Amino acid sequence: MHMSLLLTQFLDRAVHLYGRKPAIIDELGKRYTYEEVNERVNSLSFGLASLGVEKGDRVAYLAPNTLEMYEGFYGVFQVEGIMVSLNTRLKPMDYVYILNHSESKVLFVDHDLLGLIRPVRDQLETVEKIVVHGLAENGHGLIAYDRWLSSFPSTDFPRADLHEDDVSTLLYTSGTTGNPKGVMLTHRNNYLHALSTMHHLRVNDRDVLLHILPMFHVNGWGSPFYYTANGATQVMQKAADPKVILEKVEKYGVTVMHMAPTVLQSIMDQYKNVQPQIDQDVRIIVAGSAPPKAFIKQLEEEIGWEFYQVYGMTETSPLSLASYISSENECASNDDYYELKVKTGLEMIGAQVRVVDEFGNDIAKNGKDIGEVIVKGPLVMKGYWKNEAATNETIINGWLHTGDMGTMDENRRIQVVDRKKDIIISGGENISTIEVENVIYDHPAVKEVAVIAAPHKKWGETPHAIVVVREGHEVTGSEIIDFTRERLAHFKCPTMVTFMEELPKTASGKIMKVKLRELTSQR
Amino acid sequence: MHMSLLLTQFLDRAVHLYGRKPAIIDELGKRYTYEEVNERVNSLSFGLASLGVEKGDRVAYLAPNTLEMYEGFYGVFQVEGIMVSLNTRLKPMDYVYILNHSESKVLFVDHDLLGLIRPVRDQLETVEKIVVHGLAENGHGLIAYDRWLSSFPSTDFPRADLHEDDVSTLLYTSGTTGNPKGVMLTHRNNYLHALSTMHHLRVNDRDVLLHILPMFHVNGWGSPFYYTANGATQVMQKAADPKVILEKVEKYGVTVMHMAPTVLQSIMDQYKNVQPQIDQDVRIIVAGSAPPKAFIKQLEEEIGWEFYQVYGMTETSPLSLASYISSENECASNDDYYELKVKTGLEMIGAQVRVVDEFGNDIAKNGKDIGEVIVKGPLVMKGYWKNEAATNETIINGWLHTGDMGTMDENRRIQVVDRKKDIIISGGENISTIEVENVIYDHPAVKEVAVIAAPHKKWGETPHAIVVVREGHEVTGSEIIDFTRERLAHFKCPTMVTFMEELPKTASGKIMKVKLRELTSQR
Ligand SMILES: Nc1ncnc2c1ncn2[C@@H]1O[C@H](COP(=O)(O)OP(=O)(O)OP(=O)(O)O)[C@@H](O)[C@H]1O
Ligand SMILES: Nc1ncnc2c1ncn2[C@@H]1O[C@H](COP(=O)(O)OP(=O)(O)OP(=O)(O)O)[C@@H](O)[C@H]1O
Ligand SMILES: [Mg+2]
Ligand SMILES: [Mg+2]
Repeated sequence: MHMSLLLTQFLDRAVHLYGRKPAIIDELGKRYTYEEVNERVNSLSFGLASLGVEKGDRVAYLAPNTLEMYEGFYGVFQVEGIMVSLNTRLKPMDYVYILNHSESKVLFVDHDLLGLIRPVRDQLETVEKIVVHGLAENGHGLIAYDRWLSSFPSTDFPRADLHEDDVSTLLYTSGTTGNPKGVMLTHRNNYLHALSTMHHLRVNDRDVLLHILPMFHVNGWGSPFYYTANGATQVMQKAADPKVILEKVEKYGVTVMHMAPTVLQSIMDQYKNVQPQIDQDVRIIVAGSAPPKAFIKQLEEEIGWEFYQVYGMTETSPLSLASYISSENECASNDDYYELKVKTGLEMIGAQVRVVDEFGNDIAKNGKDIGEVIVKGPLVMKGYWKNEAATNETIINGWLHTGDMGTMDENRRIQVVDRKKDIIISGGENISTIEVENVIYDHPAVKEVAVIAAPHKKWGETPHAIVVVREGHEVTGSEIIDFTRERLAHFKCPTMVTFMEELPKTASGKIMKVKLRELTSQR
Repeated sequence: MHMSLLLTQFLDRAVHLYGRKPAIIDELGKRYTYEEVNERVNSLSFGLASLGVEKGDRVAYLAPNTLEMYEGFYGVFQVEGIMVSLNTRLKPMDYVYILNHSESKVLFVDHDLLGLIRPVRDQLETVEKIVVHGLAENGHGLIAYDRWLSSFPSTDFPRADLHEDDVSTLLYTSGTTGNPKGVMLTHRNNYLHALSTMHHLRVNDRDVLLHILPMFHVNGWGSPFYYTANGATQVMQKAADPKVILEKVEKYGVTVMHMAPTVLQSIMDQYKNVQPQIDQDVRIIVAGSAPPKAFIKQLEEEIGWEFYQVYGMTETSPLSLASYISSENECASNDDYYELKVKTGLEMIGAQVRVVDEFGNDIAKNGKDIGEVIVKGPLVMKGYWKNEAATNETIINGWLHTGDMGTMDENRRIQVVDRKKDIIISGGENISTIEVENVIYDHPAVKEVAVIAAPHKKWGETPHAIVVVREGHEVTGSEIIDFTRERLAHFKCPTMVTFMEELPKTASGKIMKVKLRELTSQR
């Protein structure tokens, strides 16, 4: 029997086996069982149908991590719609772009974020209805969610015949390297990613997940899918406030959290201040970039939580590498162990990952040579929305070109060293800007740093460091350069240093080197 | 990207990440790394191609658990062939039936089993070549495997475009209830079953699997696939000899074994005799039928190994239920805990399992009402080979009818109580023959028992017990009946008892009640 792999099956299983268990604990601590959530999902689907949402229609969500956001996924899937989850940290004009580009028909927006939409409302060309989470009364053409939802039945919604190759989510990339692109992920993409990820991350029904990573961000790495399939409890968290996070970990017995390295840093600082009483085992799943080794050591040894690095991108559903200590890794010393943990990872089951040179040949497995990371497998997106040219540039002969540069060691462990667009080629040598930045970060006066390429007559390119100085400190450019020359091969050291008040960042907190290059070239 | 889910990808990953790790430890203790196994697999594929095996051709294997058997799967898949793995305990005429029915082109046979084929060789209508594992020299039209294999290159075999809906394995059912039927499982079936099963069984790269369950038997529940994907070490075991098994567990640090309850019993008996020194954690995965509660308790408390029951059938790749203690199960007492463990299980991720009455409606979730277990999902077979009628009788509206009868409790935990063909209906009441047998097994004089239906004027049917008496014991029919009347509702007690020297069994050790009914009705 060829039966479609559908995300709706994950919630079905949770309702079957974990129906009376808390599925969601919302911001106020209110608990909703899987049965209750499912009833709300059903009402939502009836509501969407009443708004005329049909197969393939896009439904956009602008919300932090809330019950309403979570139920949106499953409610939209039941009507065969496509979930367009919007990054909450964009500017109003960005929403105009994405909503019009995706041709979204309905927009759900959290009351707290309505101010981002109000000023541009009349520029939305396709949005027919705006439904507001947390709004008390209809008015000004806005629909109050709770009232609206409760007017629909909560009985099983009659699902039409979904197919696994139908697009389920349309997620726009972070826009670190250019304009955000709409990534089409099918039910099959998300489903198979979920199966593999739940296995590698050892997700189980005793897990209590704190949703720190925003669900809009490649669905918080697909977490609304695989934690649901396993019947875990999911605690909602609107903002990444370390104080509140630790309180929740203690109060709800949280066992697992996915987050970016910067958030982890703030939680660890807070932990040391308050010394909370946390007895359960906790796993911290980190991606986006690798935190320094000392950082992981501190987490595991001082706090006693398990560190787990993964790697991915919106275009691959997202995860393709997991950085576990494999049975093949002998860690002779404590340092070896952290050396491995800090590396990006090994290909997950279902993902094929290679590192290739400019001619498409595998680079030597020596942990030194640098090539582009390419990924193949059922987790690779269907393509970019309305952008065949970009799709064809990115997926070549079935291999998705990540735009990330990395090395591979003899055990096929991959280390991402830089973005292709950021790497510096100086006198024919590759220089990882991440490596140079990591060294400069060790300087006590440095608060933030980004290294970019500057044109150079003799070498082609040369490293240029943009530094933000820590408050109360002073440092000169030549001091920075000297500092690196004591610690790095000389060809890797910056030859120019520029100081700035702050660095331009994307909504998800990544430094926009493309902007930095523009800024510095104008000077 | 729609990329096919192929079983070959599992070995690829193992070779990539675990290439120099022992993949297989053979009967003599010789170790083969994943790279070495892969080279043999490549040679095999070149060899098969040279014999003219093409896409969709059937290649039959008659072998115990050996390296040669294991590599057969992947070697056949690479040439897009279909693996027909034969039960080693059949009679020569059975092989004639299956080989001709499957129209197998090539037969690989272990030297020790050649005697099963020799007498019927000229009745094989489609087999063009016979290749013998462990044969020193070609002769009598037989090809000596090792020599033959080493004449082919071990470099990467150029794979054609396999598709996930292509049949990968053709496995004949045990024939417990009638003639064996050929079950077609596609790459997709086996692949998705593997993903879900590895998650539920917590398979990982530190596992050392002892292959006790024969690989021909729904591929040892798919184990050559999911242990490979995870890079586990696989120890081969030709016969289920408890002494040798325990020695290997100790010697190789075995962490996991799949087996039928009868084998487990013999291992436990042996364990108590020899008291081996086993330090590692061991998981025992059991299916086929549920062992008694006391048995599980003994395993977990006295031996300290973890018991894990699963349920499946050839037609569902095979596993669809897993009997774990879920987060929803509060075990107030030690007895509660084992009460749960003895039950058949909860639907696994990817499997939808219902229990329905004769009209197809779900039975009440009260743990009492009995209905047929039906299964839906991507693990359900493509169909029976050359038997559309049987396929259409078995898969109805997308639901596979297992022919097993069961109950479902309020947590949707399913308990299989009997085969549909075996259950007794007396005065309108369902009687589980398994339940009655379990009671009779407690009688000290009983070695083996099977309960079947006998026609009855007043009640329609009545339980008839067929008993094998334990050596040195004596017991009468009315003593057996009295024994049950003290322990069971009276309508469930046998009204007739017949004594036999031994019970007719299938090759995999299951009692053939269909034969018993024939025998007793002739009396
Ligand atoms: N473990 C990791 N180590 C290093 N980098 C990582 C890791 N995980 C993710 N990344 C980076 O994050 C990227 C994926 O991020 P995402 O898909 O959210 O958008 P983006 O690539 O930042 O934005 P855009 O594609 O619009 O430029 C990867 O391509 C990689 O550069
Ligand atoms: N955990 C279990 N508890 C009870 N019965 C089980 C369990 N696991 C498997 N079984 C039984 O084994 C059957 C599957 O066995 P298999 O597919 O090997 O062939 P068979 O059904 O015995 O033979 P045939 O279909 O030819 O009559 C199931 O249908 C069920 O009756
Ligand atoms: Mg990107
Ligand atoms: Mg059967």
